[in-house]
Amino acid sequence: MYSFKNDYNQTCHPNILKELKNLENIQFDGYGLDDICDKAKEKIRKEIENDSDIHFIAGGTLTNLIVISSILRPYEAVISCDSGHINVHETGAIEAVGHKIITLKNDDGKLNANEVKKVFENHFNDENAEHTVKPKMVYISNPTEIGTIYTKKELKELYDVCKEYDAYLYLDGARLAYSFEAVNNDVYLKDYKNLVDVYYIGGTKCGALFGEALVINNEKLIKDFRYNIKQRGGMLAKGFILGSQFNTLFSNNLYYEIGKYANDIAAYLSEELEKRNIKMLSKRVSNQLFLILDNKTITELRKNYSFEKWQVIDDNNTAIRLCISWATDKDKVYEFLEDLDKIL
Amino acid sequence: MYSFKNDYNQTCHPNILKELKNLENIQFDGYGLDDICDKAKEKIRKEIENDSDIHFIAGGTLTNLIVISSILRPYEAVISCDSGHINVHETGAIEAVGHKIITLKNDDGKLNANEVKKVFENHFNDENAEHTVKPKMVYISNPTEIGTIYTKKELKELYDVCKEYDAYLYLDGARLAYSFEAVNNDVYLKDYKNLVDVYYIGGTKCGALFGEALVINNEKLIKDFRYNIKQRGGMLAKGFILGSQFNTLFSNNLYYEIGKYANDIAAYLSEELEKRNIKMLSKRVSNQLFLILDNKTITELRKNYSFEKWQVIDDNNTAIRLCISWATDKDKVYEFLEDLDKIL
Amino acid sequence: MYSFKNDYNQTCHPNILKELKNLENIQFDGYGLDDICDKAKEKIRKEIENDSDIHFIAGGTLTNLIVISSILRPYEAVISCDSGHINVHETGAIEAVGHKIITLKNDDGKLNANEVKKVFENHFNDENAEHTVKPKMVYISNPTEIGTIYTKKELKELYDVCKEYDAYLYLDGARLAYSFEAVNNDVYLKDYKNLVDVYYIGGTKCGALFGEALVINNEKLIKDFRYNIKQRGGMLAKGFILGSQFNTLFSNNLYYEIGKYANDIAAYLSEELEKRNIKMLSKRVSNQLFLILDNKTITELRKNYSFEKWQVIDDNNTAIRLCISWATDKDKVYEFLEDLDKIL
Amino acid sequence: MYSFKNDYNQTCHPNILKELKNLENIQFDGYGLDDICDKAKEKIRKEIENDSDIHFIAGGTLTNLIVISSILRPYEAVISCDSGHINVHETGAIEAVGHKIITLKNDDGKLNANEVKKVFENHFNDENAEHTVKPKMVYISNPTEIGTIYTKKELKELYDVCKEYDAYLYLDGARLAYSFEAVNNDVYLKDYKNLVDVYYIGGTKCGALFGEALVINNEKLIKDFRYNIKQRGGMLAKGFILGSQFNTLFSNNLYYEIGKYANDIAAYLSEELEKRNIKMLSKRVSNQLFLILDNKTITELRKNYSFEKWQVIDDNNTAIRLCISWATDKDKVYEFLEDLDKIL
Repeated sequence: MYSFKNDYNQTCHPNILKELKNLENIQFDGYGLDDICDKAKEKIRKEIENDSDIHFIAGGTLTNLIVISSILRPYEAVISCDSGHINVHETGAIEAVGHKIITLKNDDGKLNANEVKKVFENHFNDENAEHTVKPKMVYISNPTEIGTIYTKKELKELYDVCKEYDAYLYLDGARLAYSFEAVNNDVYLKDYKNLVDVYYIGGTKCGALFGEALVINNEKLIKDFRYNIKQRGGMLAKGFILGSQFNTLFSNNLYYEIGKYANDIAAYLSEELEKRNIKMLSKRVSNQLFLILDNKTITELRKNYSFEKWQVIDDNNTAIRLCISWATDKDKVYEFLEDLDKIL
Repeated sequence: MYSFKNDYNQTCHPNILKELKNLENIQFDGYGLDDICDKAKEKIRKEIENDSDIHFIAGGTLTNLIVISSILRPYEAVISCDSGHINVHETGAIEAVGHKIITLKNDDGKLNANEVKKVFENHFNDENAEHTVKPKMVYISNPTEIGTIYTKKELKELYDVCKEYDAYLYLDGARLAYSFEAVNNDVYLKDYKNLVDVYYIGGTKCGALFGEALVINNEKLIKDFRYNIKQRGGMLAKGFILGSQFNTLFSNNLYYEIGKYANDIAAYLSEELEKRNIKMLSKRVSNQLFLILDNKTITELRKNYSFEKWQVIDDNNTAIRLCISWATDKDKVYEFLEDLDKIL
Repeated sequence: MYSFKNDYNQTCHPNILKELKNLENIQFDGYGLDDICDKAKEKIRKEIENDSDIHFIAGGTLTNLIVISSILRPYEAVISCDSGHINVHETGAIEAVGHKIITLKNDDGKLNANEVKKVFENHFNDENAEHTVKPKMVYISNPTEIGTIYTKKELKELYDVCKEYDAYLYLDGARLAYSFEAVNNDVYLKDYKNLVDVYYIGGTKCGALFGEALVINNEKLIKDFRYNIKQRGGMLAKGFILGSQFNTLFSNNLYYEIGKYANDIAAYLSEELEKRNIKMLSKRVSNQLFLILDNKTITELRKNYSFEKWQVIDDNNTAIRLCISWATDKDKVYEFLEDLDKIL
Repeated sequence: MYSFKNDYNQTCHPNILKELKNLENIQFDGYGLDDICDKAKEKIRKEIENDSDIHFIAGGTLTNLIVISSILRPYEAVISCDSGHINVHETGAIEAVGHKIITLKNDDGKLNANEVKKVFENHFNDENAEHTVKPKMVYISNPTEIGTIYTKKELKELYDVCKEYDAYLYLDGARLAYSFEAVNNDVYLKDYKNLVDVYYIGGTKCGALFGEALVINNEKLIKDFRYNIKQRGGMLAKGFILGSQFNTLFSNNLYYEIGKYANDIAAYLSEELEKRNIKMLSKRVSNQLFLILDNKTITELRKNYSFEKWQVIDDNNTAIRLCISWATDKDKVYEFLEDLDKIL
């Protein structure tokens, strides 16, 4: 049985464990105030080409709830597309810290700047505005939940709308490593400074054991931020475990290579499926593929492979998701194609 | 420079990294629903000698806030001693999830059952009870913040008071490994089933990279618990990283050996200090020592050792804390004593 | 200038002030524990024909947030139609107490039992259910935000779905007085015992100065409820002010007469508008009318009348809302029709 | 049976009902955006001699929780004395909106500026400050829970400490009317502008049916405040009911006369008790008296009078509280003294 279920089904990239092994017998200060965290931050700052504030946080949901609760006042809300991770897969974490998520229908997994603008306009034109939550933040993820990516232009438009309405743009980069080599991508780490107020560079889904690197571009959001991390339980006593992992990820281009590796396989698989005239729910962009297969084929494949059923298409056909990661074994991809050929 | 500052200043026990290395190339299901978590739970269940519900959570503050917010209704409160970790060192995490902490003066770091009983009595005798929060849970830690431990009798008394008033007893075992070989300890893992409703077996401070194992004894508290962990961000995508660590900690008696190792050193150090007539703030019980030294001596020691200043005694003397852990280097302890002799 | 803007633009029904005047020089116990509150509860219990638990709360948003936060666990959510008051007009009050609102498209202002059932089914069939909020309550209002009403059959279907999934049905009766004489109504106070778990009988919009009467049918929801009211600030020190008002409203059929008065005027106005071939956005059901007028007519009418613009129909036409209440002056309704005739 | 239990046991001052009667048949805009609220604000602004922002809120606990949750960030805390209303009599309302209350031992019901300063100092000198809540607000009430009052000097000292540490001073004036004529008072409405950042002028306990007038002096705290009131349920649909009451209270010196009336009776009663050598728990300052009586006398008095037992003194003696208000009947006070004489 081989799993294409997600991009977090193996421990971590070997370099990461190797580096943790190297730290054996070294003593560190607690709570992220250590040399190795500093070193990791320096490496990231070099990649992002600015000196934004950086924090390492234990996980993605934690990062989202800490960022959002730290920035918003109780009556302020965050705009997300309906398929946004905070809206559907975090068990109401954002509402649990007190904030409404204003949802807009997703457009290929993304938020559209014009639609977002309308939310702001409607609110500020409403003479009873105070009877409704005040939109103050826009949440997006890149790549999105379905693996699509934002262009630089799209991000700029969203950011401009936010600035026009004195709101913040927050980007969830849980899978950021897989964006750089995605189809038609034109946004790189150095660009985010001028495109979002705050974002995180994902570790968990991009080769780390766990952990995310939060980057705060907007100076207004920096003050006292560590209090927030501590209060919500996101500050690791052994912060250097997080620092070490990001130190490794940003050494020798590892973070980029992890993304490239997965995208290359995904691209190969996508081409091969095309040759076999397999229908796709949407065109492959990054490390996720959405295939439409008949249910009999799916049952056969499931004998040897695990993957998520994504969407029922009709009585006989279902879209499935194949998720490729830094850890995917190429040979298993070849085998998958062979097995598919046998079934078809 | 050698640090006696805390018990979380090194990565982890070598066995833990070794085992993580062994998991390379193995695929696991996400969110703690994997074989290795199951195996770790089985091992813990063998030690606790019952089949309580077990969950692995990313950190101590997270565990505390998840447990407390999951169990209490909005108007219910938790009783803690004033020095309790939730009261002083978690940046208001419990209040942030909506609950008041009713504090009692600590008695050698501990809560006294009679004092706790009075809180319940006063509340339920108050004809305007509903104008005040309802005490519904008692929070203790074992070992306590200052390294003392509860006897079985003391725990039983607290538990009985809780049961009398239909409340829950929650034990924070962040340093539980260091309790078993503590001076005069008579409480072991197998005893907790009948002494507390819910507790956690600490990993972070007891040799793991990070993570805690929550044990829910009281069946009323089990239902839907994973929703709570997920909502607060305590559920790791790669739950098997936590499972693997506890699997290692509960193989070959490692968890007990870690505690014994630290306690043995602490006992040795305590004896040696006694020989030198060094005054102690309180008698050594587990892995923490509280020495009273004159400030000049402290300044000298600080050239080669880091440790926490715990309490000002008078203009010339200060109590300092030395924290011994699974990772403490014995040779450094000998050196510390030699250096101390040179100064004195 | 005469206002048809809402049903809370005048102090209160004269009987209410008269009765408050009668209480001058009488001393009462505080916080609703007085004779007059008891008397008011007895009168309500006679009307609802059962001995449900009753509480008087200072306002509608308060009642909603107290009920919902009291009943739901942190990870549980409430289902509402998109136009529900808690979803659009309470500034995120429900999210501020920690709960997600799962929204369904409204069907003539109402929730449909089949649609609600699907939400439960989808959740409980989801193998990753704990990654999403758990639906545990259904929120409806009767009459709805647009003045439509639920039939007994519709309520029973919703209630049955709730019971099937161990969830609660909560009915917001801010305008309940206007439901009894609404077109085709077949639900009366005595029926609610077997149709909802908890509901409130609105005072503020039905002739009182302020205040709502919460009725808890489901015994599981009764315990400790006053703690919740007190904690959220909904418990009036002078609770007897609320008790007195409901005592008056439920004396001499006043509550029903208030509703009948408004519905009669609304019916008359509806008929007259029909005679004039004025298009309606929807058929009049209770005390609210939604007329479609051309913008020039609206501008003319606004010289003498205030009302809410409800919805833009096209470039030239807009739907407006006329709200009739216990306090509406019939003569002003005649004048309005005359003025309309002059314009048309 | 006559009650000296509290100052909220009768409806309201007759002028208030009279004025509400005068408003019959007048239509108002909703949610406090009406002429009468404006008029009331103007009257208050004349008394406070500045143009601070003013809001009318439905009750005291609501006001406290709205103010505190609006101002503080999640990790910030409010300092209160242990006897503070928010700490003991609001069922954890402040914790329920997420904030820790840092308590200091009260000094005659009051907070001492030096003690408060130490809290700030300790926090900002702590190198692990972010592991603890950040003190950002000081909460006091005037008169205090036991009827004592702050001098102008004491308030200034507290305010200066707050300003030194960039914190806010909030004054709960639930009984403010009773402060002006209190023994040795030197603080008047016009003084508060330069003494506190925000405070409220109590209505409920000072002659109104219900409601409080919040005054925001500090301009940084004004923005978007109505969102907060609405979200927490403190904004009355019929805001004019609140406006009308404060309009009346600030017409013809009524607010001051209410306070003077109660203080005069309290002074008279205090003198008479002194003549009889009745021991007092503390000297009478405003409208509350704390008498120490033997238990037999208390039992006798309770046949005709209700009052609160405040504190057990010894096996035979108890301190009781007599609360005088705008509504206290002087004849009943004479009778009380006569009855006391008969018993003694």
